[in-house]
Amino acid sequence: MAEYIEPLQRLADMFRRLDGIGAKTALRLAFCVLNFSEEEAREFADALIAAKTDICLCEKCQNISTGPLCSVCLSEERDESVICVVEDPRAVIAIEKMHGYRGLYHVLHGALSPMRHIGPDQIKIKELMARIEDGNVGEVILATNSTVEGEATAMYLARLIAPYGVKISRIANGVPVGGDLEYTDEITLKRALDGRYDMN
Amino acid sequence: MAEYIEPLQRLADMFRRLDGIGAKTALRLAFCVLNFSEEEAREFADALIAAKTDICLCEKCQNISTGPLCSVCLSEERDESVICVVEDPRAVIAIEKMHGYRGLYHVLHGALSPMRHIGPDQIKIKELMARIEDGNVGEVILATNSTVEGEATAMYLARLIAPYGVKISRIANGVPVGGDLEYTDEITLKRALDGRYDMN
Repeated sequence: MAEYIEPLQRLADMFRRLDGIGAKTALRLAFCVLNFSEEEAREFADALIAAKTDICLCEKCQNISTGPLCSVCLSEERDESVICVVEDPRAVIAIEKMHGYRGLYHVLHGALSPMRHIGPDQIKIKELMARIEDGNVGEVILATNSTVEGEATAMYLARLIAPYGVKISRIANGVPVGGDLEYTDEITLKRALDGRYDMN
Repeated sequence: MAEYIEPLQRLADMFRRLDGIGAKTALRLAFCVLNFSEEEAREFADALIAAKTDICLCEKCQNISTGPLCSVCLSEERDESVICVVEDPRAVIAIEKMHGYRGLYHVLHGALSPMRHIGPDQIKIKELMARIEDGNVGEVILATNSTVEGEATAMYLARLIAPYGVKISRIANGVPVGGDLEYTDEITLKRALDGRYDMN
């Protein structure tokens, strides 16, 4: 006998294509689906297709959106002169959860990475530059990740944007709130010390 | 803004219904799907529906199958007088991987559990008894899990089958191969000692 019957194996193979799902987990998830009702399975299938067909990128900020413009770009309460540049739509969600940022976003959908053959043309840099060239931007906050790729991308963008005379800033590095100095790595500690602020 | 756009949230909610997938993982998986091609998403959706519509239970052994009889029951090389009773189709796969068992199976689809309101009528005991009543069965191997529920189910079945005069056996408990005595719990060790075999 084939170890797994074909429809089960096929479903497990699809689960395996998801990041971080190995062969065993994929099979476990496929077995979970067998316990779904047929209606639930159909709902799941519809949700999968809808995620691809109903989600597009916002024409302005490139964030995921259900219409030509995302809800942030559509909002009239946001400060259009500030653009926060992030790598990923998940970063937008994280910043929105903070409820403290009132500017707009720009989602690059990646970071520069020569190792993975991702150059400036593979991420949404052209679209960012078009927004800056339009002239209404006063500040660009570079909020790419604090990884090697994220830092490199921020440095690349800073150099690219500099000639336009807009303010360019980079989010701070430091000890995370609730974090213990003892468990903080040296580079973070150095950045935290370098970035120390006056208390008097 | 709603924290997540609706189609994404909907897909994440479906992933969350899978065992062992929490809110954060569900969202991560939904984001993975956004990176799929539309064709891949459709393939995934089809696989989900096929898993529900193309998989049924084998009329004889209740294992998952793509036809009225599963490949084990259809095979002419199996010993039809031995039935190995397991809780779950995954147990069948595990035993088949061993390539050493030549009898048939019976999948209960669960174990007795008063705590979870699972009684004899909720699992495939009736179907097992019908096979035993048919009269061609010589041995029933009770291979339910070594959990409280699995043991209780095995004991219940042993008592139920006893009047039919067929041989009833239970898989052995003991130290797993490659296992270290130091890390083996006391109950397992006791069972391993009780089940010791002669070496001369």
